[in-house]
Amino acid sequence: MATTDLVVEKTSSGREYKVKDMSQADFGRLELELAEVEMPGLMSCRTEFGPSQPFKGARITGSLHMTIQTAVLIETLTSLGAEVRWCSCNIFSTQDHAAAAIARDSAAVFAWKGETLQEYWWCTERALDWGIGGGPDLIVDDGGDATLLIHEGVKAEEEFQKTGKLPDPASTDNVEFQIVLGIIKDGLSVDPKKYHKMKERLVGVSEETTTGVKRLYQMQLNGTLLFPAINVNDSVTKSKFDNLYGCRHSLPDGLMRATDVMIAGKVAVVCGYGDVGKGCAAALKQGGARVIVTEIDPICALQALMEGFQVLTLEDAVSDADIFVTTTGNKDIIMVDHMKKMKNNAIVCNIGHFDNEIDMHGLETLPGVKRITIKPQTDRWVFPETNTGIIVLAEGRLMNLGCATGHPSFVMSCSFTNQVIAQLELWKERATGKYEKKVYVLPKHLDEKVAALHLGKLGAKLTKLTPEQADYISIPVEGPYKPPHYRY
Amino acid sequence: MATTDLVVEKTSSGREYKVKDMSQADFGRLELELAEVEMPGLMSCRTEFGPSQPFKGARITGSLHMTIQTAVLIETLTSLGAEVRWCSCNIFSTQDHAAAAIARDSAAVFAWKGETLQEYWWCTERALDWGIGGGPDLIVDDGGDATLLIHEGVKAEEEFQKTGKLPDPASTDNVEFQIVLGIIKDGLSVDPKKYHKMKERLVGVSEETTTGVKRLYQMQLNGTLLFPAINVNDSVTKSKFDNLYGCRHSLPDGLMRATDVMIAGKVAVVCGYGDVGKGCAAALKQGGARVIVTEIDPICALQALMEGFQVLTLEDAVSDADIFVTTTGNKDIIMVDHMKKMKNNAIVCNIGHFDNEIDMHGLETLPGVKRITIKPQTDRWVFPETNTGIIVLAEGRLMNLGCATGHPSFVMSCSFTNQVIAQLELWKERATGKYEKKVYVLPKHLDEKVAALHLGKLGAKLTKLTPEQADYISIPVEGPYKPPHYRY
Amino acid sequence: MATTDLVVEKTSSGREYKVKDMSQADFGRLELELAEVEMPGLMSCRTEFGPSQPFKGARITGSLHMTIQTAVLIETLTSLGAEVRWCSCNIFSTQDHAAAAIARDSAAVFAWKGETLQEYWWCTERALDWGIGGGPDLIVDDGGDATLLIHEGVKAEEEFQKTGKLPDPASTDNVEFQIVLGIIKDGLSVDPKKYHKMKERLVGVSEETTTGVKRLYQMQLNGTLLFPAINVNDSVTKSKFDNLYGCRHSLPDGLMRATDVMIAGKVAVVCGYGDVGKGCAAALKQGGARVIVTEIDPICALQALMEGFQVLTLEDAVSDADIFVTTTGNKDIIMVDHMKKMKNNAIVCNIGHFDNEIDMHGLETLPGVKRITIKPQTDRWVFPETNTGIIVLAEGRLMNLGCATGHPSFVMSCSFTNQVIAQLELWKERATGKYEKKVYVLPKHLDEKVAALHLGKLGAKLTKLTPEQADYISIPVEGPYKPPHYRY
Amino acid sequence: MATTDLVVEKTSSGREYKVKDMSQADFGRLELELAEVEMPGLMSCRTEFGPSQPFKGARITGSLHMTIQTAVLIETLTSLGAEVRWCSCNIFSTQDHAAAAIARDSAAVFAWKGETLQEYWWCTERALDWGIGGGPDLIVDDGGDATLLIHEGVKAEEEFQKTGKLPDPASTDNVEFQIVLGIIKDGLSVDPKKYHKMKERLVGVSEETTTGVKRLYQMQLNGTLLFPAINVNDSVTKSKFDNLYGCRHSLPDGLMRATDVMIAGKVAVVCGYGDVGKGCAAALKQGGARVIVTEIDPICALQALMEGFQVLTLEDAVSDADIFVTTTGNKDIIMVDHMKKMKNNAIVCNIGHFDNEIDMHGLETLPGVKRITIKPQTDRWVFPETNTGIIVLAEGRLMNLGCATGHPSFVMSCSFTNQVIAQLELWKERATGKYEKKVYVLPKHLDEKVAALHLGKLGAKLTKLTPEQADYISIPVEGPYKPPHYRY
Repeated sequence: MATTDLVVEKTSSGREYKVKDMSQADFGRLELELAEVEMPGLMSCRTEFGPSQPFKGARITGSLHMTIQTAVLIETLTSLGAEVRWCSCNIFSTQDHAAAAIARDSAAVFAWKGETLQEYWWCTERALDWGIGGGPDLIVDDGGDATLLIHEGVKAEEEFQKTGKLPDPASTDNVEFQIVLGIIKDGLSVDPKKYHKMKERLVGVSEETTTGVKRLYQMQLNGTLLFPAINVNDSVTKSKFDNLYGCRHSLPDGLMRATDVMIAGKVAVVCGYGDVGKGCAAALKQGGARVIVTEIDPICALQALMEGFQVLTLEDAVSDADIFVTTTGNKDIIMVDHMKKMKNNAIVCNIGHFDNEIDMHGLETLPGVKRITIKPQTDRWVFPETNTGIIVLAEGRLMNLGCATGHPSFVMSCSFTNQVIAQLELWKERATGKYEKKVYVLPKHLDEKVAALHLGKLGAKLTKLTPEQADYISIPVEGPYKPPHYRY
Repeated sequence: MATTDLVVEKTSSGREYKVKDMSQADFGRLELELAEVEMPGLMSCRTEFGPSQPFKGARITGSLHMTIQTAVLIETLTSLGAEVRWCSCNIFSTQDHAAAAIARDSAAVFAWKGETLQEYWWCTERALDWGIGGGPDLIVDDGGDATLLIHEGVKAEEEFQKTGKLPDPASTDNVEFQIVLGIIKDGLSVDPKKYHKMKERLVGVSEETTTGVKRLYQMQLNGTLLFPAINVNDSVTKSKFDNLYGCRHSLPDGLMRATDVMIAGKVAVVCGYGDVGKGCAAALKQGGARVIVTEIDPICALQALMEGFQVLTLEDAVSDADIFVTTTGNKDIIMVDHMKKMKNNAIVCNIGHFDNEIDMHGLETLPGVKRITIKPQTDRWVFPETNTGIIVLAEGRLMNLGCATGHPSFVMSCSFTNQVIAQLELWKERATGKYEKKVYVLPKHLDEKVAALHLGKLGAKLTKLTPEQADYISIPVEGPYKPPHYRY
Repeated sequence: MATTDLVVEKTSSGREYKVKDMSQADFGRLELELAEVEMPGLMSCRTEFGPSQPFKGARITGSLHMTIQTAVLIETLTSLGAEVRWCSCNIFSTQDHAAAAIARDSAAVFAWKGETLQEYWWCTERALDWGIGGGPDLIVDDGGDATLLIHEGVKAEEEFQKTGKLPDPASTDNVEFQIVLGIIKDGLSVDPKKYHKMKERLVGVSEETTTGVKRLYQMQLNGTLLFPAINVNDSVTKSKFDNLYGCRHSLPDGLMRATDVMIAGKVAVVCGYGDVGKGCAAALKQGGARVIVTEIDPICALQALMEGFQVLTLEDAVSDADIFVTTTGNKDIIMVDHMKKMKNNAIVCNIGHFDNEIDMHGLETLPGVKRITIKPQTDRWVFPETNTGIIVLAEGRLMNLGCATGHPSFVMSCSFTNQVIAQLELWKERATGKYEKKVYVLPKHLDEKVAALHLGKLGAKLTKLTPEQADYISIPVEGPYKPPHYRY
Repeated sequence: MATTDLVVEKTSSGREYKVKDMSQADFGRLELELAEVEMPGLMSCRTEFGPSQPFKGARITGSLHMTIQTAVLIETLTSLGAEVRWCSCNIFSTQDHAAAAIARDSAAVFAWKGETLQEYWWCTERALDWGIGGGPDLIVDDGGDATLLIHEGVKAEEEFQKTGKLPDPASTDNVEFQIVLGIIKDGLSVDPKKYHKMKERLVGVSEETTTGVKRLYQMQLNGTLLFPAINVNDSVTKSKFDNLYGCRHSLPDGLMRATDVMIAGKVAVVCGYGDVGKGCAAALKQGGARVIVTEIDPICALQALMEGFQVLTLEDAVSDADIFVTTTGNKDIIMVDHMKKMKNNAIVCNIGHFDNEIDMHGLETLPGVKRITIKPQTDRWVFPETNTGIIVLAEGRLMNLGCATGHPSFVMSCSFTNQVIAQLELWKERATGKYEKKVYVLPKHLDEKVAALHLGKLGAKLTKLTPEQADYISIPVEGPYKPPHYRY
């Protein structure tokens, strides 16, 4: 489907959407209701903040995997008074029943499982476009694509204003960036101030994930950041939970749904031993695999060794392993030359970052290579020389979202409660100048609050400091309990 | 669909079948090819025995979950010369694409996911009915339903011959047994010697699982066993692998596919700590749950304690736990009165035995109870008094097969290689009188052989005894290496 | 100290003993009292059987590591009415304070930590010699040395009676067997019927461990077994607890006390994956080591793989590993040629069987090798070619007993309760002919009873079968709950 | 022994010392040589820096557990040119053979296992007193006692100078602080500028542990810090290794050596889930215990839950648990009222901080309580009302050092390499003014270097970033690889 064929639909109440199948809305609603029970942080936000409607008047655009869990986030935002438009931040990550339920009941959604890149950016642009009055007040971003579109749009408009030159998709080899430039070019022809208007209205963005955060700090460093940003990823209750425990759960889930492969007895290579890699390596070890870790960072490498993992280079292990997982947040980790040395039916997948962790381009363009789609998101690629093949999941994109349903609700409740709190903070301070065009993290007492909201559901009982004890270690009785540099 | 509406179809080559959707055969074939790489034991059987066609002339009926793994078993049997008819042994366990591939390419299949009980027994009867010349030469059984049908058929025919009385479905309260009697009754009216002919032809059965094996030993004890049986379940390479490592893999798989629930942080109750329970408890612990075990056997209870599990009664834990799993092989484990005391959205499932481990009858007939089907095999049951609900998987039947795809290929290769060897043994000795109407286990050297066939795939290298060492511990250099009572 | 210098001492009450240091008796008593709290099975025996004094009149000789736990066993036997003489079954395994406490308070003890082989057999002979009236009524044996001495003694006496030939120590290369023959020869010159009298009086032996049990079955097979034997090792509550969980505890304990080495990050080779090997591999994995298993048995090898261990030959791993543990129950596992290929300061130890699992003879006689004793039971052996060395624990003997204190009380309570029950059974049936000159295992209901006695201490609550459930699976409500072939 | 009886001894070369038993020096030397192989970071420092003798002319005083590992640290400092005086920072933590070897061969040592508090502070004062020219140039501190003595000394001297008032031990209830004041008072009478001279000479301190670091930040905050300090504890390669993996190793080591208790099956309470608590909880879980965590910090509590631990208050668990471990770094965690509610022979120990985590004072002064010393550092305390008792390890002080040998060499090599680097840095910059009277952490590239020095010993191979990859994520090819806020 070319984007020219993409038609925005409307609910009976006039809200825009574009989803796969509106008839799945009931199913989505049922799963949403289950998820609510597993997301105590978000439900507490509704109870605490709902009555005062703090988001009254706020337009929020989200670019974040359109799953059931995200649906609970969206309805938390709307129950606090916001108007919301949403797209997914990954072409495979949408759960179509979640999208349908939200589109029908709560917010404008532009997302379906299995978008083309062209469709993906069309959806992003739709989610940002609030019609008259410019764009959103706030952005919930994951990976930074919504933020990127605005920054690139503004840059192109400035160039156009100065030189009259339109962005030229042919100026880049990067296929995806060609599409971005195309969309901006189309926008320019309609309204040469489109992205400037967005920028002006925008109060700020809260960013979900490592990759997006890196981009933000980069822009802060370069002085090109156009609006305040809250780094939600580095809340402890995000990166040490979602990245670690989320992946520990969803990596085997994705492997099982995609391939039904027995994990026990296998040799698995986990590239990268950050929080995501730690979760993956733990999951594979617990499943009975023998895990080899690759790392560039000697500290993380030593951590892997302390847990009993062998630390080797990919070259050392490439011919012996059965399962390869990239978690690095970097590019060019598993190249097509590696893949050609792998065992027949070795499984190759990415749970880290963009699909460029795996050299999908090299694979796709290898002369004579044959792609056999076992089922959507599970492809066997057969090499001409050997007639053996490897199995690539989710076309190199996040396999837990492409092949399974992403992280489970409970851990996403931690992450998303941080998002809600960040959005509330940005909105509350929109006129005070508290936040400059910089990247911020949430203060520790809010981080601790997010955790506290999740203890009751698990039956935990906290110990209380006595004033004497608090005094003895020089912290307030009610926290925060740790210094800023504490690593958990 | 009433069974009167069930129509056997035929392939272009004239082979009978009844499956859900023949168009899934290509997809089934692709997954079959993947599975073959993961099933070295079965593939070795093809290599070793294929050329001599040892099953030439043998008719084999199977009643065993019609999954991708079973498809590789079936094609191993056919590649060794057998003719095969197959049904599933569980109404939810068929993978429709596997059934389609086999029906199209290799054997007569009567199986689909989501049979009614009436359909289930119709399929069983179809699989046993080879037309002229009576029934099969050999049975591959799982749970003993094919064996039961013949035994009950023979019993009814004897009664009929003596007294002229037909079996009376109304004579039992057990809904499923009413259906069995109905089918036998229908058979009797067509051929009053139908099951006698089957019994006469039958060389023997090899039985897959604990429950079926219990029935066989019971019949041996009562002197009612009609033909030789090989207990495949108690091969070490079956019960200590499939039951243990298979469930360790497929329990979380089923939980995740059915509910997406986060396992970490939850309280889980595992009822029974046999091999299946051990696998389940290990999986839940590794996933970050806190596990409570219930047991009747003090030895198994003490094993659970040594692994750090709390051992309590269900009554102690029923109100605190989030996930309940039955693995006992017994009935009446979780009753409706237990369920009413559970937390909202507690998950209740069975991976042990029949659906009577969970009191489904009590639940279904509870006045005012409301069943909300989230998706097939995932139901929320809401209690009228509290308006809270519980989530029951696979209607109380085996959740790993109902909600996921059962055990993974590699471990099933161990189990099924035992099946192939047992079938070969029964067939080879069909005229020698080696096997009486008793229950046998495979000799240890064959058990060890099954294991040995699976080592290469995992890159293992065995150490060889020297003659001096073998002599020192008084065993042959080439094994068997352990005394019969060894527990592994 | 030559055995000619060994002098039996006597307590004020006239009981014989030979221990290291009687002044440690108070310390031994304190630790004994702690151990009693951890040994509920033995204490229950005292409560249940003490009043009826079932061992009244029975003489029991024990040859079993003279530890604190064994002390609680001995005092259980005496509190049930027995008279007891005791020696250790390993030259390094005695805890001198335990020996002192027992010698002072309860039984005749001949044991100290660090016996020579000559002293060891002197102690064994002393423990068997009850003076007038021959030897003991019952033997508690571990490894079978007491049983062996009687069998060899009887054989020599028969030879002497037939031919007048005395046993000739020079007839064997085996240094230890030379000593055994010497002792028998000495005995013959005093009383040519000494061992015959022992044999005649003896009601039976209960044997503790795999190695001793193998010897017994061998003698049963050869028809040379002189009295009934109960194989305690193969009670489930022994071999699946003591061997597995005991070693999981005491292997790292021995490693730490002997070397203080950090286990995390190390590569460890475990030779053998039986119950002992399983416990060791689990402990090392949990400590953060990467574990490689060597095996001859494909079934055990496949179990190791399923737990994520690499299975290789010793040759593959010898140069890379840091820690080597033998658990095979066989000889010649780690040879001096292996040791020479190891990394500097690799640790080599045995927790399986006799010191011949490790080629101590080859090491000791290697030209130019240098032995540096770091502390007792911890030796560094330096090879002349490389000037690098390895660290050998407990001179190749059981390192958990040589370098630490053996298994902890709780798990030994399981093993020793089996011993008490076996001894009671042999004694009760001494005149009934129930037990022939064969090897027996305890019936399952007694095995289950042993387990049941240990549940309360750990706060466990058993579930009770209903009569309907018991009937459904055809077992008695009160057990035994499993068929004989069940593997746990 | 009163301190007045304490006499400094001298080696033949004239170096001062006071140790338990100089004849253990050879044994210490042997274990030192073993430890060197396990401490690659320190040995690399000798290789890299030894030739240039960077510490030439530097006097270093250390107050840090005088163990074998510390001995390797000391000899690293001396091999880099330093002169060293040393004391232990805990009355039970000295390994006497280590102290002897160092005293004989390398540095002035004042330390033995089992000091009284009076002796302890005498040793500290001796280690700080370099005679003419004042005190040391540099301090290696652990817990901050050497730093405290100087600060208190300076304070008292100022007071004395102003008011002529001597410090009054009677002014405080704290027994230990009375001793500190006494020592300062004694010093004042000899040289009223003693601590001022020390302060003046002192270049800086590097502090090892959480508690000491807290004191330093407190003094920085109050503006009372007298010299620069490097916080070694918060190097990742210290707190995320030593605290976590060190305790995971040494907690069970201490438990086993002190009590031989079986960990499997027990209920353990870990108070605090920081790095130390995480290591302890992991060790106990792996040993087969069921672990309950108590926490004040909701984030750490949620981490515990994600690992499957129950989170309760001490009050909830006090009557059910068998083992209690404090790891909080706070005071008044387990009070005597808790202890009275515990099960008979419950084990109570501290691995966190000072002995005030456990209410030793309350226990010792409880009317009628009876103390039975099983062996040094293992006491059973019997309560008069119940006649049941609890077992307290190391008199409430760090049990891994009191009952075992502390952390193993490898992990201490990480910590101590940070110490060496910190000391080098302070000394190199002594005249540049780079370090003010503040608390600093080491820069990340040095932290990464420490890790890198430990990879080779474990056979690890690092992956190298390509320039393109480094550019892509905006970090240097050679690191540092993570932003400062990264949590590992």
